[in-house]
Amino acid sequence: MRLTEIRVAGFGGQGVILSATVIGKAASIHQNGYATMTQSFGPAARGGSSSAQVILSDEPILYPYVTRPDVLVVMSQEAFTRFTPELKEGGILLVEEDLVRVSGLKSGTRVYSVPATRLAEELGKRMVLNIVMVGFFGAVTGLLEPEALRKAVADSVPPAFQKLNLQAFDKGFEHGTNLLETLAENGEGDHSVAMLEGEE
Amino acid sequence: MRLTEIRVAGFGGQGVILSATVIGKAASIHQNGYATMTQSFGPAARGGSSSAQVILSDEPILYPYVTRPDVLVVMSQEAFTRFTPELKEGGILLVEEDLVRVSGLKSGTRVYSVPATRLAEELGKRMVLNIVMVGFFGAVTGLLEPEALRKAVADSVPPAFQKLNLQAFDKGFEHGTNLLETLAENGEGDHSVAMLEGEE
Repeated sequence: MRLTEIRVAGFGGQGVILSATVIGKAASIHQNGYATMTQSFGPAARGGSSSAQVILSDEPILYPYVTRPDVLVVMSQEAFTRFTPELKEGGILLVEEDLVRVSGLKSGTRVYSVPATRLAEELGKRMVLNIVMVGFFGAVTGLLEPEALRKAVADSVPPAFQKLNLQAFDKGFEHGTNLLETLAENGEGDHSVAMLEGEE
Repeated sequence: MRLTEIRVAGFGGQGVILSATVIGKAASIHQNGYATMTQSFGPAARGGSSSAQVILSDEPILYPYVTRPDVLVVMSQEAFTRFTPELKEGGILLVEEDLVRVSGLKSGTRVYSVPATRLAEELGKRMVLNIVMVGFFGAVTGLLEPEALRKAVADSVPPAFQKLNLQAFDKGFEHGTNLLETLAENGEGDHSVAMLEGEE
């Protein structure tokens, strides 16, 4: 696992911090890796935004500060607008497709979208959309072992909610796996923004 | 509020991360400050330790990395041993007095101790020891408005546990206030390690 910078952003109440924590925890469960999760409190947080930075690495992390994320996960339009300009060239952008309208991306950005809120509602609990996003993240990025992520999910929620959250994880993961398969069948394994712009 | 570096450390299950989050959140409620909270995942976390870094500032924080904490809050002997050497000269050390035996400190370190677990047990819930520590932190450091800290506590726990956690905060705060008063009466306003060592 090379050094990977990730930002997860959305609005308060979506569980942004928990999804970032699960990703960080999975890295330390998985192949003895290291991770940091940094949460900021300030004017943006007072305005209802929520954002977390995660760094994954094989080595201890000296500066847990994300400057150019390799992966950006956005669950609100505001988060999309604010953080997409920071995304690394050729970076991966994961969006909640019913909440974010994608536009004006740098060429080469790889965009993957998931109706996380709707998938969570199918499980009867909109609140697990953050864990649907984690499952989707796991399938699309392939950065971490799915089992390490599942263990981190189970380990990060109260026992009474473990089953529900693991179902949410599986739903997001399955959606991501199916999406990658469809793209591969269509010869679009690298689902870049060029193709997306052609769709509009 | 000048730039202040804080580390909170203990073992898993003590709620170290929540207490760090409350302190960070209070800074942004209080006088429009900024804060970051960084959690690390790695071998130490796998071994049952838990530690979080918090930075408070009047300005946006560029590097959320604590190198020499101004304030160190320790809730386990292992955390004491591991992190005390990093404490800034003249720094403030807050310890859970039944879990940590203080020894070998740099001269000038100001040590304040609180039986947080016992005070939490008096409320019937050992699990709120972390919020007792936050109350004690508030009284002893005077870094943040008590009301900002109380709001951050209320805002960070499930509604059903708000009352209990606010009682825990008040108990820790009261203990800290009484301790400072006693020290002042004894002419020991600066409760330095020199005095503590004399006690042993």
